[in-house]
Amino acid sequence: MTAVPASITDGRALVDQAMRAAAERLDPSIRKVVAYHLGWTDEHGRPAAAGGKALRPALALLSGRAAGASYETALPGAVAVEFVHAFSLLHDDIMDGDRTRRHRPAAWTVFGPSAAILGGDALLALSEELLLDENTRGSHWAARALTAATQRLISGQSFDLGFERRDDVTLDECLTMAADKTGALLACSCSIGAMLGEGPTDLVTELTGFGSEMGLAFQLVDDLLGIWGSPDTTGKPVLSDLRARKKSLPVVFALNAGTPESARLAELYARPGPASEDDLREMARLVEAAGGRDWAAAEADRRIASAEKHLGDAGIDDHVRAEFRDIALFVTERDH
Amino acid sequence: MTAVPASITDGRALVDQAMRAAAERLDPSIRKVVAYHLGWTDEHGRPAAAGGKALRPALALLSGRAAGASYETALPGAVAVEFVHAFSLLHDDIMDGDRTRRHRPAAWTVFGPSAAILGGDALLALSEELLLDENTRGSHWAARALTAATQRLISGQSFDLGFERRDDVTLDECLTMAADKTGALLACSCSIGAMLGEGPTDLVTELTGFGSEMGLAFQLVDDLLGIWGSPDTTGKPVLSDLRARKKSLPVVFALNAGTPESARLAELYARPGPASEDDLREMARLVEAAGGRDWAAAEADRRIASAEKHLGDAGIDDHVRAEFRDIALFVTERDH
Repeated sequence: MTAVPASITDGRALVDQAMRAAAERLDPSIRKVVAYHLGWTDEHGRPAAAGGKALRPALALLSGRAAGASYETALPGAVAVEFVHAFSLLHDDIMDGDRTRRHRPAAWTVFGPSAAILGGDALLALSEELLLDENTRGSHWAARALTAATQRLISGQSFDLGFERRDDVTLDECLTMAADKTGALLACSCSIGAMLGEGPTDLVTELTGFGSEMGLAFQLVDDLLGIWGSPDTTGKPVLSDLRARKKSLPVVFALNAGTPESARLAELYARPGPASEDDLREMARLVEAAGGRDWAAAEADRRIASAEKHLGDAGIDDHVRAEFRDIALFVTERDH
Repeated sequence: MTAVPASITDGRALVDQAMRAAAERLDPSIRKVVAYHLGWTDEHGRPAAAGGKALRPALALLSGRAAGASYETALPGAVAVEFVHAFSLLHDDIMDGDRTRRHRPAAWTVFGPSAAILGGDALLALSEELLLDENTRGSHWAARALTAATQRLISGQSFDLGFERRDDVTLDECLTMAADKTGALLACSCSIGAMLGEGPTDLVTELTGFGSEMGLAFQLVDDLLGIWGSPDTTGKPVLSDLRARKKSLPVVFALNAGTPESARLAELYARPGPASEDDLREMARLVEAAGGRDWAAAEADRRIASAEKHLGDAGIDDHVRAEFRDIALFVTERDH
């Protein structure tokens, strides 16, 4: 397993501090839910350290550096993208009925769905508030881009919920969903610092492209891990995506591949009730035999190459480019 | 019953058109929920006409006129405040378990809670997007004010949910909750057009004060109607707030009045299980005997007077002032 890139660990403490300061603006009853969800406290409000890896803030800060902006200029963007990410996880866990998040009970199971709905709402509004605190052309640009990314995040989740009830999801639809649900906010994270720093439009465009492609690669790898990943790293039971009959990218590729294995996989996916361990192993074998595993791995590689191309075209200094590249490779690693 | 003021009916069609155009930006699966919730369609997607009275958009347009701004300048504000209002109702109905909204099944009962959560999220993001479409000082100001009002709306709802589990709610807390949950967005509605039109700060301040006081008066009257209103106008069963053991303003006044009736009311409110019709009638009598009804009526009058004072200090032309005043009197009428 590759070490966490320095650009993720370095800014972490400062971003964390800014996030906590921003959360002070929330009503205490809501802050309690948010602090738990962000891993700052346990369910009794006692200090904890269970946060995520804060990938999006690191990207936001890097994108500020890419535009030659100061750390302070990019910081509200770093906090805002992480808050939008937290908003979406809070609400998605309720909608998906997911009871576990980062090895802990999901916030809605601890505080109830109402508190989790409100916590998400408050984080969404707060993310905009932070960007609009400054009255600059850059903050307006960033706020505009963040609401657009949020809309795509919401569309992606809506699409995803619809997939569960359909047996005719195409690979294109599935890619669109992933681009909306995962790609849009990562693309915004990779460019928001440059917007706040009022960098050139071309730079913002290339960084957006980089983030978008990296986001798809990330989703493809996540989907591979959801079937073949070890429970130690994913924090989920083995074969969990198949257990949940999730229409992830490798599965949808396999379902649409037109092979005998595709037909058998469709049959198993359509069968009501929980699948046996034998069924789950067969499903995994079928996805692989129908080409889903190889396609997803190759597609992830293509997306990473495309992301690197955008990065090369962005015309940024070698250090910053190397750090962006390290993050892209780190989050799309398959063996961790 | 007084006729609906012309300023509410006049702009209605144009605001409606702008709202529909804005909703076109939403993903179809989400637009379906939003169109139903806003009364544009029935549960099968067929055209309907079941919307609310669009009070907030009328106030937003008026506030644009107060600042001498064009109709087009204030229009995004009119749509944005109505979308935030719609967002809050969509989410609140889920949290409160309210199955009826404007004489129809609430959206979450028709499309499910997940779709209603997403619909609300999308409306919240869209409201910001609409304001940020323009890159002006005024649109930045308006967007900032709307996110602040949204935070107060969320705090108010959180406070309100907490009230249900407490038997020691003070009148001050209850007034703060109402100011957050009802006052903040009305205050923003009454001033957002002036912000978009980049009117003077003093004007925005007075219009905000007007909306805030009108909002409290409106809540007081709504709470009176929730106990003594006729089901025909409220759209809810008689004595509905008491049935739901709601800690509304007249009730909280009565509970804190220190009279023998206060003690008996507290006893009835604390009793588990549904109340009998006799109990409900006794509760209403007790709220009145403990002074809750008279206090709420007098407090509403005081708030209306204070709202009028702000209006007088705003230095706006007589026509606009008269229209603001008509709306304030209309929404705080007790006999409709």
